[in-house]
Amino acid sequence: MTTTPIHTFDDLLHRAEALPRKRILAIAPANAETFQAVAEATARLPVSFILVGDGPLCEKGLNEAGAQGGEVRIEHHTELRLVLERSMELARNGEVDVLMKGGVDTGTMMRAVLQESSGLRTGALLSDVFIMEFPGRTGNRLIMITDGGITLAPDLTNKADLIRNAVRVAHAFGNPLPKVAVLSATEFVLPNLPSTIDAAALSKMNERGQIKGCVVDGPYALDNAISPEAAAEKGIRSPVAGHAEILIAANIESANSLAKSTTYFAGLRLAHVIVGARIPILIPSRADRSDAKLLSIATGMIMSAHPTEGRGH
Amino acid sequence: MTTTPIHTFDDLLHRAEALPRKRILAIAPANAETFQAVAEATARLPVSFILVGDGPLCEKGLNEAGAQGGEVRIEHHTELRLVLERSMELARNGEVDVLMKGGVDTGTMMRAVLQESSGLRTGALLSDVFIMEFPGRTGNRLIMITDGGITLAPDLTNKADLIRNAVRVAHAFGNPLPKVAVLSATEFVLPNLPSTIDAAALSKMNERGQIKGCVVDGPYALDNAISPEAAAEKGIRSPVAGHAEILIAANIESANSLAKSTTYFAGLRLAHVIVGARIPILIPSRADRSDAKLLSIATGMIMSAHPTEGRGH
Repeated sequence: MTTTPIHTFDDLLHRAEALPRKRILAIAPANAETFQAVAEATARLPVSFILVGDGPLCEKGLNEAGAQGGEVRIEHHTELRLVLERSMELARNGEVDVLMKGGVDTGTMMRAVLQESSGLRTGALLSDVFIMEFPGRTGNRLIMITDGGITLAPDLTNKADLIRNAVRVAHAFGNPLPKVAVLSATEFVLPNLPSTIDAAALSKMNERGQIKGCVVDGPYALDNAISPEAAAEKGIRSPVAGHAEILIAANIESANSLAKSTTYFAGLRLAHVIVGARIPILIPSRADRSDAKLLSIATGMIMSAHPTEGRGH
Repeated sequence: MTTTPIHTFDDLLHRAEALPRKRILAIAPANAETFQAVAEATARLPVSFILVGDGPLCEKGLNEAGAQGGEVRIEHHTELRLVLERSMELARNGEVDVLMKGGVDTGTMMRAVLQESSGLRTGALLSDVFIMEFPGRTGNRLIMITDGGITLAPDLTNKADLIRNAVRVAHAFGNPLPKVAVLSATEFVLPNLPSTIDAAALSKMNERGQIKGCVVDGPYALDNAISPEAAAEKGIRSPVAGHAEILIAANIESANSLAKSTTYFAGLRLAHVIVGARIPILIPSRADRSDAKLLSIATGMIMSAHPTEGRGH
């Protein structure tokens, strides 16, 4: 990629604005937040939408959200099973670039995606990558956190895949060699704290070329990973220390809390995308801030436009 | 306690200011941050200090920090083993109210505390309680997070003890029935996510009277625990939902990241104290903001003044 790297959410939106039109499929849209996201995305970004769900409900929702003039097509299905089957079919046939969850619960949608028959699996682990804009001293920068949404108890093999998935997002953002910090509660390897041992192993796997396209180091506590001062205080020497761009949490609870704390304690903007399927998948939460949905859509568009994301097409 | 409840860090400092004088022992003070904390605490709070460590170094450090006129006594020992033995002896003999770590690493100090011969063990689990001031819509409120520092892999028995320890802090702060949320990555009980099962069990243990003096509910994701809007969105009905005052993290990695994110992402003030020994123990980090040390000292003083903290004396 010769395009400018994406360092902030403004960069992200500008990049998405400049892309060729992307086709987004919303699965069973049903609540006002989804229709607002459709309205906002069609107004701001080069996107078209296919809404697969209850036709009259979609018409009403779009009207109420003021979605005028956008390229939006509705396919009427009321039975959830048919909604999911048709959505997977459209995705499988290459007629959509990004999948977006509407009023269906995440577990149900993911089961449909993960079925062999969906045609959307690539063999890779699917994982959720949170992206937040961190106000550093030298300007804002994007930091990714994973996986707070999909893999319940990641083992070492899974964690290597979580790194690879997040690294694909960083590459799509124009960062050829992202700095990956594997988090625990300390920067020391403690024989009785398995997450510190995983971190050491992942770091070595990166050195040995088993995880490519990034620099992996760990274990870290959060402060040593993102604050150069805290890292210096502890005397950690690594290009990753204090400058991490991707945070691999020790477990799903930790990733989930950490990502949510950035919204609920710090008020930072957040985007997130599920990576690892043939096309990016968005699972906006109803509790998300409205800008989170637009930023997530932009992220999905950019992932979709990135060459390595297209494998299997 | 008939005193006013402590809702904010200002309340906390006011309460500490009104206490009878408390005696704090600093173990092997060696860096400027520790001497500054001594200087600031003696200037603002009714405290006296015993510094057990290198005498000339302490004199120099106190002078440089401008610790004038405070009630500070130095006991000269240079060998770390003797510093620790003498510190434990003074604590065991009831000559100090609060222990504070200086230039000794946390593991080494905690091993000295946990030795049978220290006389500081009560039989309870020791745990670290982080306290942060959360800017809610209806004013600031204190939220506790535990355990990000001590118990590497808490099982269900340990988690019940973690709750009891944090509840003691809440009681000392004048909150007779704190709301305790047990965190995971979701509000559902998932058979393949053990932290959600622990959360359900802890909730039931509270209902059955096995954990007293609080209302325990879980599992929660962070947002459902602290945001009434997010809790309402999910339809969770519980006095704890959206109003949690104590957050029991799923594991040490999660508690540690969460507590640090409040400082590094949100810039919130933080205090923390180790509870479960005969006297409160402070382990300020060199990377802490300076107000964190004063707030932690005030917390230790208040814990020391609380009746249930005095057991064993």
